[in-house]
Amino acid sequence: MNNEELNDIRKQIDFLDEQLVDILYKRSNLISKVAISKQKTGKSIYAPDRELELLRNLKNKAKNKGVSTDLVDNLMRRIINNSYESQSRSKLAGIGPLDKDIVIIGGGGQLGKLFVRLFVNSGYTVKIIEKDDWQNAENIVSNASLALVSVPINMVDDALDMIPLLPKECVLADLTSVKEKPIKKMKEIHKGPVIGFHPMFGPDVKSLVKQVIIYCPVRYMSKCNWVLTQFQIWGASAFEMKPSEHDRIMGYIQAVRHFTTFVLGFNLMRENINLEEVIKVCSPIYRLELIMVGRLFAQNPELYADIIFSSKKNLELLRNIGDRFNEALIWVEHGDKKRFIRSFKDIYNWFGKYSEEFLKESSDFLEEVYIQKQKEL
Amino acid sequence: MNNEELNDIRKQIDFLDEQLVDILYKRSNLISKVAISKQKTGKSIYAPDRELELLRNLKNKAKNKGVSTDLVDNLMRRIINNSYESQSRSKLAGIGPLDKDIVIIGGGGQLGKLFVRLFVNSGYTVKIIEKDDWQNAENIVSNASLALVSVPINMVDDALDMIPLLPKECVLADLTSVKEKPIKKMKEIHKGPVIGFHPMFGPDVKSLVKQVIIYCPVRYMSKCNWVLTQFQIWGASAFEMKPSEHDRIMGYIQAVRHFTTFVLGFNLMRENINLEEVIKVCSPIYRLELIMVGRLFAQNPELYADIIFSSKKNLELLRNIGDRFNEALIWVEHGDKKRFIRSFKDIYNWFGKYSEEFLKESSDFLEEVYIQKQKEL
Repeated sequence: MNNEELNDIRKQIDFLDEQLVDILYKRSNLISKVAISKQKTGKSIYAPDRELELLRNLKNKAKNKGVSTDLVDNLMRRIINNSYESQSRSKLAGIGPLDKDIVIIGGGGQLGKLFVRLFVNSGYTVKIIEKDDWQNAENIVSNASLALVSVPINMVDDALDMIPLLPKECVLADLTSVKEKPIKKMKEIHKGPVIGFHPMFGPDVKSLVKQVIIYCPVRYMSKCNWVLTQFQIWGASAFEMKPSEHDRIMGYIQAVRHFTTFVLGFNLMRENINLEEVIKVCSPIYRLELIMVGRLFAQNPELYADIIFSSKKNLELLRNIGDRFNEALIWVEHGDKKRFIRSFKDIYNWFGKYSEEFLKESSDFLEEVYIQKQKEL
Repeated sequence: MNNEELNDIRKQIDFLDEQLVDILYKRSNLISKVAISKQKTGKSIYAPDRELELLRNLKNKAKNKGVSTDLVDNLMRRIINNSYESQSRSKLAGIGPLDKDIVIIGGGGQLGKLFVRLFVNSGYTVKIIEKDDWQNAENIVSNASLALVSVPINMVDDALDMIPLLPKECVLADLTSVKEKPIKKMKEIHKGPVIGFHPMFGPDVKSLVKQVIIYCPVRYMSKCNWVLTQFQIWGASAFEMKPSEHDRIMGYIQAVRHFTTFVLGFNLMRENINLEEVIKVCSPIYRLELIMVGRLFAQNPELYADIIFSSKKNLELLRNIGDRFNEALIWVEHGDKKRFIRSFKDIYNWFGKYSEEFLKESSDFLEEVYIQKQKEL
């Protein structure tokens, strides 16, 4: 086979790849029609049964043809996600009282904007209270069905103090990443329905499909339900949690992880590691670990300081992990490999089925890191 | 629009999706022909120019049709990777002396097996030396063009001691994750060509395309070049490094990261965090961090103990990071937010362009974590 023949095969491949783009184009046109249908019938964007069946059928077809089922599964999940994203940008069904107003306190912030857009797309009238709007707040909330507080964690208390008397039936809710304190305060300032939320996603999500939102019922849940249902129409999964339980787990997840990630970056700087060289040669797994550290510092320092310094309990959690670092360091100092290996196995057992599952799962998204890396080469 | 109409649209979508699987099937048949051509002409599996052009053309086409270029880019990269994988499983071009033998010491191990398969697929005769083969070793190496040491780090020294006299022209090489010590030893036991390798990939890679292999030239590089070229035909990128530089960087990357990951797992166990609950509610980024910790413990404890306990320098690196942990902890104890924020900004500056790049990059593969998570729901 000579070069001419190779070029000929490549032309045939190009032809197939172009058909693929055509299919995506035709598919997106059909998805627009699906979106209109869902908006009219009030269905959730997220259609889990349909998704499952679609994937199962296609993987069967792939298997019969000797095409990699993993490849088909992965391509289709991306295509489906893309469909959800485009549905999220179109008109959405609105389930709540559309004749009243949604008031978003901090609606000019990043997360606030996301909710403004979603409520507007669902046919609600949305009003915003930002720093300069407080003198007009009484007027703004006068016809509110929902007052949603979306301000930075260290400003929640002040914002709640400034909210004027809300209509009796109005739902008061917040999106703060801690729950005990804001919920206590919300109960004080409003005698109507109250619910606390903590979205487990950032403002940059392209759709709420399958994203998790934690909620803490506070008062008159039956009158808050339409808000939860609205989130579910947008595709979110809602999980109920007690405020104390939420704060305990998040304290750990947030404060401990952010602080240790901070220390890893701090240490890299102090050791003055040659980043360029490391990035050039390192494997996907090291690259991923480096990315997870470096990405922290491109974000808002105040936000992370607030999270870490926000509670006395965090300090205790950080001291604990410091103690455990020192405990394990002593094994290394004493060359006590056996002790290290014994603990390693204990931790494996503690993780139960998850260690193996995580290892398997990581190999899938390491391919993604690898794909990213290729873009640079 | 009623349900019947929605079902009708969905049938049209199914029809398109099935065409997509057909395209993948036809494409894989054409790729088999490409593989044969590359084997005959001795071309590398990896064709960067072709890849770039293909992606550029398709993204242009997508743009013109209003299809997401990100989606097309991502789908095509996966399809291309899959093509490389299937090429790697077929017959490959062999560039070295095919009339001589490749001897892989530790060829029964995981990484050893990968190289055995690649050399065999490239038309070489491959012989293995495992634990029980040493009495026959002299015979096994008698016609060797390459003796490749692929044994666990703590057995390299013994293995090198046991290797019999190699033919003068034979290349002696290793795959150890440290370089100074094994290279010193290899120079002593063999007076012919010597080169050290450290593959930055694990035994589970499906192809070597774009994977990095670090090499340290030791003696008679011109006689080692065919091995490097062979790796490149398999698609690998080779980076040259000095052994001391390699060990310094890897000491940091490996020992410090593995140890701190160990401590994070140790701490989770001691805090007895409710894993099931955390996994249920956490966002993709927390999930990723949890996975990166948990996955460690599904692996070989001895391997990680060896890496961490292997050198005195590691202990120093670990003490340093411990000191930095305590330094930052004091800021939290004193409520010194300003100091924390100042360091945060310093570290951001130290990372230079990488913080922002990492943040952007992470949002791409967080989608992958998210896709994985969906599989469970």
